Amino acid sequence: MKSDLLSNIYNPTDLRLLKEEQLAQVAQELRQFIIDVVSVKEGHLGASLGVIELTIALHYVFNTPDDLLVWDVGHQAYGHKILTERREIFHTNRQIDGISGFPKRSESIYDTFGVGHSSTSISAALGMAIASKLKGDFDKEHIAVIGDASIASGMAFEGLNHAGVTDANVLVILNDNAIGIDPSVGALKQYLTSVKNGKNPRQNNIIKSLNFDYSGPIDGHDLPKLIKELKRLKKIKGPKFLHIVTTKGKGLLQAEENQVKYHAPGKFDASTGEIHLKSEENLPPKYQDVFGLTILDLAKKNEKIIGITPAMPSGSSLKFMMDELPDRAFDVGIAEQHAVTLAAGMATQGMIVYCNIYSTFLQRAYDQVIHDVALQNLPVIFCLDRAGLVGEDGATHHGVFDIAYLRSIPNMIIYAPLNEIELQNILYTAQLGLDHPIAIRYPRGRGVLPNWEVENFGHYKKINLGEAKCLKDGTEVAVLSTGTIGNNVIEALKECAHSDETAHYNFSFIKPLDINTLTTIFKTFKNIITIEDGVKNGGFGSAVLEFAAANNFKNSIEILGVPDQFMEHGTVNQLQQLCKIDVKNLINLFSNGSK
Amino acid sequence: MKSDLLSNIYNPTDLRLLKEEQLAQVAQELRQFIIDVVSVKEGHLGASLGVIELTIALHYVFNTPDDLLVWDVGHQAYGHKILTERREIFHTNRQIDGISGFPKRSESIYDTFGVGHSSTSISAALGMAIASKLKGDFDKEHIAVIGDASIASGMAFEGLNHAGVTDANVLVILNDNAIGIDPSVGALKQYLTSVKNGKNPRQNNIIKSLNFDYSGPIDGHDLPKLIKELKRLKKIKGPKFLHIVTTKGKGLLQAEENQVKYHAPGKFDASTGEIHLKSEENLPPKYQDVFGLTILDLAKKNEKIIGITPAMPSGSSLKFMMDELPDRAFDVGIAEQHAVTLAAGMATQGMIVYCNIYSTFLQRAYDQVIHDVALQNLPVIFCLDRAGLVGEDGATHHGVFDIAYLRSIPNMIIYAPLNEIELQNILYTAQLGLDHPIAIRYPRGRGVLPNWEVENFGHYKKINLGEAKCLKDGTEVAVLSTGTIGNNVIEALKECAHSDETAHYNFSFIKPLDINTLTTIFKTFKNIITIEDGVKNGGFGSAVLEFAAANNFKNSIEILGVPDQFMEHGTVNQLQQLCKIDVKNLINLFSNGSK
Repeated sequence: MKSDLLSNIYNPTDLRLLKEEQLAQVAQELRQFIIDVVSVKEGHLGASLGVIELTIALHYVFNTPDDLLVWDVGHQAYGHKILTERREIFHTNRQIDGISGFPKRSESIYDTFGVGHSSTSISAALGMAIASKLKGDFDKEHIAVIGDASIASGMAFEGLNHAGVTDANVLVILNDNAIGIDPSVGALKQYLTSVKNGKNPRQNNIIKSLNFDYSGPIDGHDLPKLIKELKRLKKIKGPKFLHIVTTKGKGLLQAEENQVKYHAPGKFDASTGEIHLKSEENLPPKYQDVFGLTILDLAKKNEKIIGITPAMPSGSSLKFMMDELPDRAFDVGIAEQHAVTLAAGMATQGMIVYCNIYSTFLQRAYDQVIHDVALQNLPVIFCLDRAGLVGEDGATHHGVFDIAYLRSIPNMIIYAPLNEIELQNILYTAQLGLDHPIAIRYPRGRGVLPNWEVENFGHYKKINLGEAKCLKDGTEVAVLSTGTIGNNVIEALKECAHSDETAHYNFSFIKPLDINTLTTIFKTFKNIITIEDGVKNGGFGSAVLEFAAANNFKNSIEILGVPDQFMEHGTVNQLQQLCKIDVKNLINLFSNGSK
Repeated sequence: MKSDLLSNIYNPTDLRLLKEEQLAQVAQELRQFIIDVVSVKEGHLGASLGVIELTIALHYVFNTPDDLLVWDVGHQAYGHKILTERREIFHTNRQIDGISGFPKRSESIYDTFGVGHSSTSISAALGMAIASKLKGDFDKEHIAVIGDASIASGMAFEGLNHAGVTDANVLVILNDNAIGIDPSVGALKQYLTSVKNGKNPRQNNIIKSLNFDYSGPIDGHDLPKLIKELKRLKKIKGPKFLHIVTTKGKGLLQAEENQVKYHAPGKFDASTGEIHLKSEENLPPKYQDVFGLTILDLAKKNEKIIGITPAMPSGSSLKFMMDELPDRAFDVGIAEQHAVTLAAGMATQGMIVYCNIYSTFLQRAYDQVIHDVALQNLPVIFCLDRAGLVGEDGATHHGVFDIAYLRSIPNMIIYAPLNEIELQNILYTAQLGLDHPIAIRYPRGRGVLPNWEVENFGHYKKINLGEAKCLKDGTEVAVLSTGTIGNNVIEALKECAHSDETAHYNFSFIKPLDINTLTTIFKTFKNIITIEDGVKNGGFGSAVLEFAAANNFKNSIEILGVPDQFMEHGTVNQLQQLCKIDVKNLINLFSNGSK
């Protein structure tokens, strides 16, 4: 389809020059534009397709960027980006030096608040609204668009609970499509469904009870209705709530029918919608599948094993266990805090709980890890997927703080497997009983062992607590790696010039550290290099420094890792280059020999 | 009153041997017992007095400890402790080696879950309930007792949202007294009040909408009614919710009338209720008052200044500003996550926001600090009261992790003032514009400058970003302190033998570090000692080690601070002794001269 209207829209001012009757065509063009670009460049698809009409209606009715619009999470903001001065660079989405996959303040005046993690929009919009009022601006509107999965998270409730006792101009729009990345869960979701089906005689009074002016539910794909309702709401002061019903993936049949897969489908055929499948033959497994298949296998043999995920059954691959052992595998929704304390409660009753949370999202439950798990020394098994640099999702999603923020917590064991086999064996070892909580951190993406399943399944080996391993001898320098970044070291050592000089030790255990091996290393090698795919401030390298200081070792120690800055989006390899922990940089470093 | 019944109750088994008619007397005796002990030994009073009848009824009707009882926060659990095998040691409450002021698993089989921070009880009880069901026990009850301030926190909503779609035997009891430590706030509180007043025709259907079997509100001081209702609920399976109305401080007139003051009144006259006032003459000010009075003064001069507290107006002394400038000072309830992102939202609109959160409670908003504030580099001013060892509140409340968990976050400035003047001046400096978020950490209790207000008010001095100061010259050893623990160093150096050898530097800025001063120190002194009242793993000392490693300095560095274990309760001085950072230990250390 030739674009007639969209190509003339640079920003919402242009949009607002159009007649209301023309907006349906804009919607059609915008939808097609997203499909065309995302089918080739990859990215998040379904969420943005679902809010095309809402996006247009909001920018048409409200005076953005003066009226302030906050998108919760931001997966759904592609249409917003295209209509706000970024159509021509939209093809750089999620690429290094390109635009971010999420709204981002530094990118555009229309992106009023950076997002990525869920359920922040109501608090942020309320803060803006209170500020406007204090500045004497009583007309400005402050809009939070939030999905039904995100509104069920505790933080959103906190925002609603506060907004309801203010007279701030906040409009919360619930984009109810019954799905986040996976289908929504929980009592609130059931309640919203009953409201949508007209089965709830009380209407949506949870929201009304919190003092909001509630309207809806209305069809979120009906542009005239949306525009009429938004115009009405524009005149009403104080906290307002609009409930709209949409279909995730709207306008692409396959995306509507398979909403989980089309959340971020990878490359696909823009006309047929068919996903371009890559051959998985001879590829190593995804770490998430090593987790998902192993916990299922272990759980079949031990009925005390429980799995928990906060809203990531597909992403964590806990789905395998949920399908086969539904009584013992729980998706609790976007509720990391609850997930951790639920796990702690179960652990008090002797259950063996694997709580799988992306590294970046465990930040949401930091207090619960300290206060409910570690303080009581409950042996909860945290599985931190997406640890380290995650690539295209960028700054909001890198799991680079976990080593630093977990290492300071007493009683915690921290383990970062080198590869699939270590991951599988630590999952096995953890359920044998470690008498402490453990955090197992592993990255997004695939491992390094194509034959993993065949080689290892059912032949678990117990890992000795705190044991480090020498992977390669050397004479001058010892490289101490933790986690899968160790594979970069292995590869670099294979290719570098003076590799005889360089020893390589694998410290899968970040805590407790292998004191004996460290002592040997510090007595043997003058120069030590540590490497991790986490922040250098307070991380694994710091732990090694603390060991050295406590034992009065004077070796030279160089710490490699993520510097003290937020890393943006790009491929993992590009980001590793920026951190100087990619194979090439390591080859150079090691080839220079001892310092 | 002579105790007739209470002295014969060792545990709930004894209680259950009594006739229902006798329980009123038990209530009277238990109330008096608490008043008698707390009036002399200090502790939390009002909350426990308010749930005397509930405590008795629960242990009478349910088969504790087989039925599992979780007290949210735990301020209200004194009656519970006394009835569960701890009457005779209750006088050791909150003292070193005595019982904890909060329920604690290691202390008693009746304390099913350790608490201290709010809103964990529903998640914990649900975890236990699901575990019981999986173990084939379908009769066991799992009870969460939660106040109306705590249930408004997001985590509690997450627990309710999950519980409502299970068939687990969870009984949530809402102890609605309209107050936490300060009066409750928020839309939910208004709603609960309307339900209590019979003004809400819809009855309490927020809870019903979440699939709970709701009953109430009933008078929580009416023992027969309570017992009857609990007996009825005992027979009902699945998630249940009982709303009871109580009076905090019930039974002590002054405590009922002044609920904030009698939350933890200190010593008082057990018969008259009158609080024993200590003379405050010539005492240094409380750090919280330095904050509260200074922000009020600054806010009067700068209308962009806003203050936020999550439920601690009294404890933070933001109350001064709330009283005088109510439009710009916000108590958002127990909602740390919301508080931080609200602050971020305000900051995007150019407001200067002081967000005051106890150090231990900022753990609840760790993700928001990273994702909503630091990543966007919004200049929010975090004021972390109760940083360091807090004393009698114990393991759940020590603010010892903050340096470690904040130091790894890019863009953050971290400042720990040495004394009241530094606190005041950094509060002044922060609103001049630092272009970064800053965390200002200061301890519970009083400062060191009796004449603080007279000396300094209105004569603010701008602090230079990142500047450390030499407080005392020396020849052999340099002691680098951060924060108020530096006063221990000052005192110790005054009293120790070879003090000429020892230099003392005050590093109020933990981040950024004063690289120039550090370089001078490392070139001048062979031996370095760092000291902080936070965890050694990843803290200030680690930052100094990282500096030394990066610059290839080989000095000996000794790190003093909180070891890698959870510190229990005791006086601050006792706990400092355990950490070897009290004045006496420092005198010994410094007197031994250079290593």
